[in-house]
Amino acid sequence: MKKLINDAGAVVTDALAGLAAAHPGLRVDVENRVVYRASGPRQGKVGLVSGGGSGHEPLHAGFVGYGMLDAACPGEIFTSPVPDQIAEASTAIHGGAGVLHVVKNYTGDVLNFEMAADLCADDGVEVARVLVDDDVAVSDSLYTAGRRGTGATLFVEKIAGALAETGAPLAEVAAAGREVNARSRSFGVALSPCTTPSAGKPTFELGPGEVELGIGIHGEPGRTRAPAGTARELTRVAMDAIAADLPLSGETLVLVNGMGGTPLIELYIVYAEVDAYLREHGAPPARRLVGDYVTSLDMQGFSVTVCALTDDLVRLWDAPVETPALRWGR
Amino acid sequence: MKKLINDAGAVVTDALAGLAAAHPGLRVDVENRVVYRASGPRQGKVGLVSGGGSGHEPLHAGFVGYGMLDAACPGEIFTSPVPDQIAEASTAIHGGAGVLHVVKNYTGDVLNFEMAADLCADDGVEVARVLVDDDVAVSDSLYTAGRRGTGATLFVEKIAGALAETGAPLAEVAAAGREVNARSRSFGVALSPCTTPSAGKPTFELGPGEVELGIGIHGEPGRTRAPAGTARELTRVAMDAIAADLPLSGETLVLVNGMGGTPLIELYIVYAEVDAYLREHGAPPARRLVGDYVTSLDMQGFSVTVCALTDDLVRLWDAPVETPALRWGR
Repeated sequence: MKKLINDAGAVVTDALAGLAAAHPGLRVDVENRVVYRASGPRQGKVGLVSGGGSGHEPLHAGFVGYGMLDAACPGEIFTSPVPDQIAEASTAIHGGAGVLHVVKNYTGDVLNFEMAADLCADDGVEVARVLVDDDVAVSDSLYTAGRRGTGATLFVEKIAGALAETGAPLAEVAAAGREVNARSRSFGVALSPCTTPSAGKPTFELGPGEVELGIGIHGEPGRTRAPAGTARELTRVAMDAIAADLPLSGETLVLVNGMGGTPLIELYIVYAEVDAYLREHGAPPARRLVGDYVTSLDMQGFSVTVCALTDDLVRLWDAPVETPALRWGR
Repeated sequence: MKKLINDAGAVVTDALAGLAAAHPGLRVDVENRVVYRASGPRQGKVGLVSGGGSGHEPLHAGFVGYGMLDAACPGEIFTSPVPDQIAEASTAIHGGAGVLHVVKNYTGDVLNFEMAADLCADDGVEVARVLVDDDVAVSDSLYTAGRRGTGATLFVEKIAGALAETGAPLAEVAAAGREVNARSRSFGVALSPCTTPSAGKPTFELGPGEVELGIGIHGEPGRTRAPAGTARELTRVAMDAIAADLPLSGETLVLVNGMGGTPLIELYIVYAEVDAYLREHGAPPARRLVGDYVTSLDMQGFSVTVCALTDDLVRLWDAPVETPALRWGR
């Protein structure tokens, strides 16, 4: 294993120190592992807090800032943040209008965010939750009861975050987040495994001509192994799986996401195929992102996330955002 | 070799089709391989054209848009664009105030941009050139007489592009680009080689515990092989090489760049080390980027680019930009 790290036990804190130094718009509590907006809580605004295991950067800390999250709680690599950490973040950013937790559906995350919500209630902070479970690949998995949460997390954080900036109440912000999740589906394909710093070896083995269809973002198994096909063939597998679960009609928001080790030139080849597929199926992309947003360390591969848009969702997607990883319109 | 491609011979055109579909702000001539701003040339503005081999995305096409390039000319993977292609782009974007070519110092690029400039002169289009040669690792190399052009290319394109938007004349825009290059230095480290689609195997071999110090962006050799050290040790090698060549005093602009296959969490660990080094040496970063900007396909590793700032350069760096890969302030 060769990695740009100082110490396998200090990866998360060393990276948080770098994040703090690189982004004056963030305030990073390295010791307690919470990333805040430097501007602090805004009175009367619903606060948004997310978090989860590290190793998926820029998710979540890269989405802290105006128009998205108020705080992010990174856990150890592929490990949930702890309840105290989440509760501390939630009470610190509370502006009196309640807090929305955006939680990817993994057993540890769900449990720890629940316990954090109880701690918040003890402190008089109202918490609502959006559970993200957009990955159509498997119904239950190694770390999940029900579907896994992947790329749609970014859509939920952006759109609920934009609504929160308007001063909308907690119930409405939560409902928008749930609507985005309900309208979104994802599917991922791995060309290679990832290697965690602590394990020092790949999380699984893939043959030289083999890919994993329906991969999870922690290297957990997907639906099946298959021979490595062309970008067109692999994209079609992903899109067929999505289309089988989400009625495609009307304009869409699309994320073609790199898993961390895939060159951008390849992601654009995949995007061309996704775009053509959606147009053929009467669901042309109206908005899209192409790049590394919800990664799995150094894994090579991609995922596609499709959200069936409404006019309201387009408007909230287009609203200004200013975070390390998403920035426009302000 | 597993890659998200349809055909090793069609990688560049397939990716350009994806780029066209993904970015309505671009107009992509897939057949002639030129990426333009969709808005077309602006009368009276100096036009900026860059280009080079593909495989370094988002460089250059990802920097086409308001505040940066008017057009980019991608060649085949790691292969220069041809003179006709560059000349066509230059005449198409000419707004009557001349055109600046931003050229990375590789023999093929230099020659082909020179021939293109001659073709432009025949058409009555005045061309000036900024040659980027910021890489301190080697004095001559496999593909270069003199130093290689790497990360500073992005700084030159941003700052000269911002000045061009103000209506500054060609000589002034070119001078600003040359000043940025003169004030910038880079050094790269590879943890792994890259694999081109046509070769189908790694461009070189590195032992399991070995890194290449001073790597080029095409996998060409650097200064030396060395045992893989910590992020701190590898960063110090890079920074010492830069500091030996660029007097460090006053505020700096810093790029911590991933080579394509390195997780973002590792780049932030490197950034923390770079930031600390520059502060210790009296050259604190005032502006910075952390991410994949000048890549080498799927290579794992990083490069650091440091530019010694002036007030004018800060102002031009901060000016609005709206491209696929850089976007702020507008």
